[in-house]
Amino acid sequence: MSPPLNIALDAMGGDHGPEVVIAGAAKALLNHPGLHYRLYGDEKLITRQLNRFEDLARSSTIIHTSVSISMDAKPSQALRSGRRDSSMWRAIEAVKLGESDAVVSAGNTGALMAMSKICLKMLPNIERPAIAGIWPTIKRPCIVLDLGGNIGASGTKLVDFALMGAAMSRAIFHIEKPSVGLLNIGVEEVKGVEDVKDAHAVLQASDLPVDYKGFIEGNSIGKGDVDVVVTEGFSGNIALKTAEGTAQQMGVYLREAMNSSLLSKLGAMMARGGFAALKERMDTRQYNGGSFLGLKGIVIKSHGGTDEVGFASAIDYACEFAHAGLVERIAIDVEHFHATMNGHSD
Amino acid sequence: MSPPLNIALDAMGGDHGPEVVIAGAAKALLNHPGLHYRLYGDEKLITRQLNRFEDLARSSTIIHTSVSISMDAKPSQALRSGRRDSSMWRAIEAVKLGESDAVVSAGNTGALMAMSKICLKMLPNIERPAIAGIWPTIKRPCIVLDLGGNIGASGTKLVDFALMGAAMSRAIFHIEKPSVGLLNIGVEEVKGVEDVKDAHAVLQASDLPVDYKGFIEGNSIGKGDVDVVVTEGFSGNIALKTAEGTAQQMGVYLREAMNSSLLSKLGAMMARGGFAALKERMDTRQYNGGSFLGLKGIVIKSHGGTDEVGFASAIDYACEFAHAGLVERIAIDVEHFHATMNGHSD
Repeated sequence: MSPPLNIALDAMGGDHGPEVVIAGAAKALLNHPGLHYRLYGDEKLITRQLNRFEDLARSSTIIHTSVSISMDAKPSQALRSGRRDSSMWRAIEAVKLGESDAVVSAGNTGALMAMSKICLKMLPNIERPAIAGIWPTIKRPCIVLDLGGNIGASGTKLVDFALMGAAMSRAIFHIEKPSVGLLNIGVEEVKGVEDVKDAHAVLQASDLPVDYKGFIEGNSIGKGDVDVVVTEGFSGNIALKTAEGTAQQMGVYLREAMNSSLLSKLGAMMARGGFAALKERMDTRQYNGGSFLGLKGIVIKSHGGTDEVGFASAIDYACEFAHAGLVERIAIDVEHFHATMNGHSD
Repeated sequence: MSPPLNIALDAMGGDHGPEVVIAGAAKALLNHPGLHYRLYGDEKLITRQLNRFEDLARSSTIIHTSVSISMDAKPSQALRSGRRDSSMWRAIEAVKLGESDAVVSAGNTGALMAMSKICLKMLPNIERPAIAGIWPTIKRPCIVLDLGGNIGASGTKLVDFALMGAAMSRAIFHIEKPSVGLLNIGVEEVKGVEDVKDAHAVLQASDLPVDYKGFIEGNSIGKGDVDVVVTEGFSGNIALKTAEGTAQQMGVYLREAMNSSLLSKLGAMMARGGFAALKERMDTRQYNGGSFLGLKGIVIKSHGGTDEVGFASAIDYACEFAHAGLVERIAIDVEHFHATMNGHSD
């Protein structure tokens, strides 16, 4: 048996603060008996919420902080002196100090990234965290990265992403040799994707712990063609948001179609079991949580606007990554790759 | 009354060649009486198809060509000597020679772009064609560009895209001052989107014939928040393909949900009117056709795998653009913008 986990929560983060964070923590506790939390934030506000959850109260330590990072603060503001007393910084620091195995925050993404980088530091050879997300597909869910941490990425960086995403796939889905696709576009004559071509060459030639499938286009993501989709952060973020928007659009189309006639309305009512199953399948809360990969510690960013179901999912990920020793696995794979690369270039 | 239009068709392009091209031309003819076609390709194959459509046969001139550009040819191969006898080149050339008002091809995208550029030439200040597509939204359809013609784009180029997309919106949707959004990502702290920021600054400051709405994220596209979405070609292509994949994914989810129980099946049968309306709304064939903007002529790229319904849509666009004098409108707006920019930098 592994020792019980401890997860640090930024209780003040997100659009709803302690209300959602505490309720989410209580929900996640049901899946992880023995889990302990360190809750960072305004003691009064946290205690008020904790009163609703007896078991959670017994499994939690409150650490009072008087500063919160606002959702619209710029990272530079968040890093100014005084901010080290914030719930966000202190929660991250708990990981650095070994008091917690992972940290989860629904707060300001830019601030969380900047603070994580400074407090926890990056693994060797990694410059900035990549943001990895779980993406539902018609087969099993896949991992997509980078979702916005790095704008543009060299070939080597893209290979790092592939390795980090594969390690995450191993940790969370127990796929020993995950399949990896490099996101590219299908227009033959285009210039300027040299980084993607460089990564392609390395992934094809190298003996890395991934099953490299070559280039894929955007429509392959939802088809579940690969376990790990690799791209730089600008296009990754745009792909993610565009998919979210399209799913919402389809939902609107479907509602309007089912309301277009009395007969359709009746039919939809009769098929409500099917629609309930559809709704559950399209519920993105179960995939909530972007993982900051490449840090010397586990940091999960929850969506700011999520509810307790979504926040609990983010905590689930944190627990699974901690159990799997994700940081150590990434460190080994990335170090091995860079050692090989350096060997080649000598 | 404007004079009757003449459209050049690359009859050999696409996965299905003359079969789909000719049937699509016949279908489009119903919407545009008086339209005349120049059909480039193998005379025997074209004639065989034309026998099915009397009206079309009367409205068409066949120009026999003995060379076809294969769908997987590299642009450099397509440009080699001898290829100027191809159906694709000759159809493009018809526009250059003033014999046709526009050209439509379902052939190899890279070859079509390379040949169009060489044969028709670019408008002043424009380096390469941008590919613009019509994107259905929950409100009215919008225009998204670039979908893959330019990988990366400077701030000035992005403003060119905005102007060209706005001119297209005016031509096709008759929106006098289209709203324009610049695709960006929501992560605050990121670096490296200087081009997008540059374009933002110009669009905010300038007196251009667009209603500039600022940055938008990927989920705004399907919501119909703006009439024209501007981005460079890599992320634009990935957004498009990802949206297509997500729509397909939702379709699979829906089918599986409706087949999940007998009651759902019965309900779905009862609601079949609604599902038929949904299917029609999700039918992307009505939006088929990527416009190559910035050329001294109208070039429409049809999806290679489309059927006659889709190919007819591409011809519809060609006709509307020709009627609206799209190339001249773009030329005026882009020239005015560059003149102003040069004035500023003096």
